[in-house]
Amino acid sequence: MIALLAQVFASNNSNLEVGIGDDAAVIRTSERTVITTDMAVEGVHFRLEWSSAFEIGRKITAANLADVFSMGAKPTFLVVAVSLTGNEDLDWIENLAKGIAFEANLVGAAVVGGDLTKGAGVTIAITALGEVIEPILRSGAQVGDQIYISNLPGWSSAGLAILEKGLPIESEIAKRAVAAFRAPTLNYDYVGNLTDVNSMSDVSDSVMTQAAQMAAASSVQFNLDFNLFQASADFEELRKLSEELNISVADLILGGGEDHVFMATGADLPGLLIGSVSAGSGLNVLGNEKAPDTWRHFE
Amino acid sequence: MIALLAQVFASNNSNLEVGIGDDAAVIRTSERTVITTDMAVEGVHFRLEWSSAFEIGRKITAANLADVFSMGAKPTFLVVAVSLTGNEDLDWIENLAKGIAFEANLVGAAVVGGDLTKGAGVTIAITALGEVIEPILRSGAQVGDQIYISNLPGWSSAGLAILEKGLPIESEIAKRAVAAFRAPTLNYDYVGNLTDVNSMSDVSDSVMTQAAQMAAASSVQFNLDFNLFQASADFEELRKLSEELNISVADLILGGGEDHVFMATGADLPGLLIGSVSAGSGLNVLGNEKAPDTWRHFE
Repeated sequence: MIALLAQVFASNNSNLEVGIGDDAAVIRTSERTVITTDMAVEGVHFRLEWSSAFEIGRKITAANLADVFSMGAKPTFLVVAVSLTGNEDLDWIENLAKGIAFEANLVGAAVVGGDLTKGAGVTIAITALGEVIEPILRSGAQVGDQIYISNLPGWSSAGLAILEKGLPIESEIAKRAVAAFRAPTLNYDYVGNLTDVNSMSDVSDSVMTQAAQMAAASSVQFNLDFNLFQASADFEELRKLSEELNISVADLILGGGEDHVFMATGADLPGLLIGSVSAGSGLNVLGNEKAPDTWRHFE
Repeated sequence: MIALLAQVFASNNSNLEVGIGDDAAVIRTSERTVITTDMAVEGVHFRLEWSSAFEIGRKITAANLADVFSMGAKPTFLVVAVSLTGNEDLDWIENLAKGIAFEANLVGAAVVGGDLTKGAGVTIAITALGEVIEPILRSGAQVGDQIYISNLPGWSSAGLAILEKGLPIESEIAKRAVAAFRAPTLNYDYVGNLTDVNSMSDVSDSVMTQAAQMAAASSVQFNLDFNLFQASADFEELRKLSEELNISVADLILGGGEDHVFMATGADLPGLLIGSVSAGSGLNVLGNEKAPDTWRHFE
């Protein structure tokens, strides 16, 4: 099993000196490193009947990589700890590993170690490292900044609703939403090419949650204008889907989680402009009278 | 909750630039870093009725730190991902964190990030980083090396047997064994002061398992002499306890896991001499006619 995984995660990264097989991996690191960890639990973050092993692997890896990117860092190395019930066949485990490796390879990162253990359910914990010169913090938002997101969020949340309601996954829009839930395709290029950003975070929980956290960390007020989201080329499609699902499109966009789009503040950034930063505190949402007072994701 | 944990894990480490609260932590790293991860699962690695939260936190942290030390590295930073059922009270969670912080502080390491999520049981995954100049690998054992261990193993395994059999924990020996199972006290000084070591590993699974792994990694034969273990000042106490438990003392010492003693090869090392390295392959155990053909730990 370890030999199989070592094969899936094989890397010719020149900064990797000792890989899988010893008590620890040995890597060359830059002077400044970012480190983050994320755990995904069966029945809470994913269901085996809803997602393939490959998709589960991609999704938890993407969540970690998004945290690295949102610091303005470039992912380098990952370690993966997994508990299995013993009922998984070898194919399933190999595909989980392949999903993790696929997502890591997208950004040039390598899996260099791990732990496999028994558990009552499948639990996956990934730790990602990244190299950074000047980290971009949540706390850097400045009064006068504009607020941008890399992509329209809400697709993952819509996909979850489709799966929970057991709706048919036939239309292209429904397929897109379910795919986003199963394994979101992150816009790594967005953060790779940013300059002059004052603050950034990825949207794990929801636009509302992350905006409120960034406002608090920066001691400023975040002002979002829901009308601005409608400038997205994706808005109309998501609105149509929201009608089919009988969910407010604002709930999907402002309250949905796990798309891992990037939210950044600064002047004249790429992406979708969604608001501005002012003196004050907290979060202010315009253009959506019935603000989602609860927002949630699968968790 | 996050604020409470940030307080427990507060650190004035000058290499920590951004701690708990952003998408990732930012740390200063040496040129060469080791990284390892270990997961502990309720019902597999620990039971809530057998161990306090503090002990559980210490034990999983020690397992990670031992992996760092056994590379010849010095632990620097840790991240911790935990799933909780929601039935744990705040005290329990705080004590888990305090146990992790206690063990990390013993060696000057700091917890700089984490993830808290819901799960059907308690699962703890820790990733530890360390700094190293010349890593000591499992694969470095040389023909002619002597084999040493830092301390006599078997206590944790004996403690587990006491708990599994529901025996009274009254004698000093029984108390020592149960304490070793609940939270082993590692001999970090042993590895901190070693020089001229050719290969090293910590004994997570058992002396037999680790010796066989080191022999394979180094393409040599490991020859252990069970009679040599009897030179340990602890041997007689463990032998007495093994009789009370009706377990062969050789099974405890050679087959017991989770003490995390260090096994090293070289010439004239400190610790207990237990054998030698010769040309060949595999593991050869003298002085114990009834070699433990199965060895196990709680997992």
